[in-house]
Amino acid sequence: MSKIPYRFFLTEDQMPTQWYNLRADMKELPDPMLNPQTGKPATEEDLYPVFCKELAHQEMDNTTRYVDIPEGILEMYRIYRPSPLIRAYNLEKELGTPAKIYYKFEGNNTSGSHKLNSAIAQAYYAKEQGLTSLTTETGAGQWGTALAEACAYYHIPLTVYMVKGSYNQKPFRKAIIQTFGGEVIPSPSNTTAAGRAILAQNPDTTGSLGCAISEAVEKAVTTEGCRYVLGSVLNQVLLHQSIIGLEAKKAMEILDEYPDIVIGCAGGGSNLGGLIAPFMQDKLLGKANPRFIAVEPASCPSLTRGKYAYDFCDTGKITPMARMYTLGCGFIPSPNHAGGLRYHGMSPILSKLYHDGYMEAVSVEQTRVFEAATLFARVETILPAPESSHAIRAAIDEALKCKETGEAKTILFGLTGTGYFDMTAYESFREGTMSDYIPTDEDLQRGFDGLPKIPGIQE
Amino acid sequence: MSKIPYRFFLTEDQMPTQWYNLRADMKELPDPMLNPQTGKPATEEDLYPVFCKELAHQEMDNTTRYVDIPEGILEMYRIYRPSPLIRAYNLEKELGTPAKIYYKFEGNNTSGSHKLNSAIAQAYYAKEQGLTSLTTETGAGQWGTALAEACAYYHIPLTVYMVKGSYNQKPFRKAIIQTFGGEVIPSPSNTTAAGRAILAQNPDTTGSLGCAISEAVEKAVTTEGCRYVLGSVLNQVLLHQSIIGLEAKKAMEILDEYPDIVIGCAGGGSNLGGLIAPFMQDKLLGKANPRFIAVEPASCPSLTRGKYAYDFCDTGKITPMARMYTLGCGFIPSPNHAGGLRYHGMSPILSKLYHDGYMEAVSVEQTRVFEAATLFARVETILPAPESSHAIRAAIDEALKCKETGEAKTILFGLTGTGYFDMTAYESFREGTMSDYIPTDEDLQRGFDGLPKIPGIQE
Repeated sequence: MSKIPYRFFLTEDQMPTQWYNLRADMKELPDPMLNPQTGKPATEEDLYPVFCKELAHQEMDNTTRYVDIPEGILEMYRIYRPSPLIRAYNLEKELGTPAKIYYKFEGNNTSGSHKLNSAIAQAYYAKEQGLTSLTTETGAGQWGTALAEACAYYHIPLTVYMVKGSYNQKPFRKAIIQTFGGEVIPSPSNTTAAGRAILAQNPDTTGSLGCAISEAVEKAVTTEGCRYVLGSVLNQVLLHQSIIGLEAKKAMEILDEYPDIVIGCAGGGSNLGGLIAPFMQDKLLGKANPRFIAVEPASCPSLTRGKYAYDFCDTGKITPMARMYTLGCGFIPSPNHAGGLRYHGMSPILSKLYHDGYMEAVSVEQTRVFEAATLFARVETILPAPESSHAIRAAIDEALKCKETGEAKTILFGLTGTGYFDMTAYESFREGTMSDYIPTDEDLQRGFDGLPKIPGIQE
Repeated sequence: MSKIPYRFFLTEDQMPTQWYNLRADMKELPDPMLNPQTGKPATEEDLYPVFCKELAHQEMDNTTRYVDIPEGILEMYRIYRPSPLIRAYNLEKELGTPAKIYYKFEGNNTSGSHKLNSAIAQAYYAKEQGLTSLTTETGAGQWGTALAEACAYYHIPLTVYMVKGSYNQKPFRKAIIQTFGGEVIPSPSNTTAAGRAILAQNPDTTGSLGCAISEAVEKAVTTEGCRYVLGSVLNQVLLHQSIIGLEAKKAMEILDEYPDIVIGCAGGGSNLGGLIAPFMQDKLLGKANPRFIAVEPASCPSLTRGKYAYDFCDTGKITPMARMYTLGCGFIPSPNHAGGLRYHGMSPILSKLYHDGYMEAVSVEQTRVFEAATLFARVETILPAPESSHAIRAAIDEALKCKETGEAKTILFGLTGTGYFDMTAYESFREGTMSDYIPTDEDLQRGFDGLPKIPGIQE
């Protein structure tokens, strides 16, 4: 190809028809999930009350390298996939960098983010199993919107526990979920024991993701024909999100390109894990040696300042325990943190890769993130989600380093979504009222103090 | 191509590099604009104080069939174009229709609508002429957002007069325009004589598009180096928007398809005029005979219930007069009308084609529009703008007719944008509080009574 276009789309028949399971190529696997009752490794069967069977299987399957994507899922993928790989010519020009910057844009579907890739898979398998309803949680609302879309498509009733702070601040997020037929309950709520317990302790809490997870899981396990689905963190979610990286890699191959650096924002790790998967495979197999950079908010720094330890996935401590980088399941980011990426832990797969030195991590403060977001919007004409803008910030920083050194590195980052529902944050940035918050060591210690004691494993 | 994909993208090098000027092939031209001072046909030079020179030329140029798109415009088009032509397989299945339904989706850019196609052109030419600022108006906010993006890209300061009702109801629209660097002033305002006059008459008015146009034009002609730009109605805008139809036609040719019916929503006519342009050329030249359907709100029925008469383009009566279907420049739709498409008139080109029998028009009530929008969102996973949903409604109605007759017609409609900023309207529909409003004949007569008297032309 003589000149690389601004936007490159694979054709529909070039779209991957298999997901890639990174675990199959890892030198060492993540430590197993533990059953909180027994302290023993959880089995696939242990997960059946919470997840539908195929997803429980995917969660535990460390060996199948490629997983066929069922036709019923491909059918919905084709409505918005393949997503474009975009050459950021304008950003490069604006920065005056010799670096070549690419981004994989996942925001061009109505859910507005990459979350739809896993939402579709999870709703599909639930429908196939004959389940009659699903529950989930949502924070900033991207996941809830995506799952509501998928459930509308496959005709499954959905209940979304929405972090109360977001529920109140983002009425339009609630409205879009409801338009797609989802029921939205502000969390913590009186509909679950977990919610009632948290409200009893702190009636004025604005909630947290961990708390909303507790409620959604409880509702699922106590309702006939109902299961719980989660939009990030889990192995199954990274499997589904590998479609991002597979498409990106195939597109770059056609364009005769390969990234020196792959960058993604990291909350629970779903986008980052999906984006890097096939490139990480190359690294694990010694075929290439790209750098990987996880970018997280300075206000919720699980990789850069968390502990690599067993922890619960939820505040109510009813889920299995996973070994991951965590700030403690009671950690709640400062309310002045505007975007998503507010989960206390990190995908066990990514945690392991980071722990073993295959991946780097940086944390960035939100005013620098919105500075990058605003610049990006003006030159690339896409208004990025605050989450995605963490990756933009790091990509710009790497491109500016290239400017200093004169290196023409190829940078690939994940642009996970759009910021249409985040205008309040954009306004506070523009008006100069946005501030940064970095938790003190004492703040973090309180979270670490709550880590579970597991005899013989974690004292 | 064996099977038509869900989404079909032309490649970047298949993107049209010329716009198509429909006037060059019309059997009879629209009547000339009249200078309101002299009552004589306006000249290109008459327009120079208001529009930049190239745009004034395009406005009056009835003969140049194809107009080269400058490289500086193509450069920004390539960031989001070509836009996809989508086969609505899911909608067809849901309706059980033998019809084949296609839609050209213009919402996959951050402005969220087709308006960007003309915004880019108008900002580019202004920059080329060395102008130092621009003014415009916006109603629902799509145009203001698009123009703010274009002005940010070409580095031209922009002032947007935003209809006061929208300004108050849609704070996020204002915020996105501001994020792209635009100044937003609620209209009517005290910054212009036109605004002050309207406020003096009616201090509590929520404003109208016609009034905001008056203010923006006044501001432009009284500010050094400033010009006014308009997002619809004008011949130049239809020229720029022809990119929609040209891409759609080229894509359909590659897919070996041709529409029997082309459907678009119609407010000022920018999307409809652009979408139908090359297909209307075929009809005018006797090469094909598709049907064209303009869909307008029952609450603002300029084609279906308006008069074909000379009228001002603005409420303040400072613009040239155009012969078009109009409800009278003082007409303001009921406040219970939720979407855009609230302009009192209609593109003179489309008005002429409608008047001469080349095009049909229907009006639809907004609850039927939102019913179609919600169905469409659930099966096609795109949350459509209320404006665009008028076209969806008509496309569904035509597809259902095919179901009755068993005809496998090919339907093409324009999906102009997304509804992210219209959740309040979606909520009121979902909650059953949305009502319909159809102006009475007496309501309309009040608008017609205000039509200008022009000696010898319109008494």
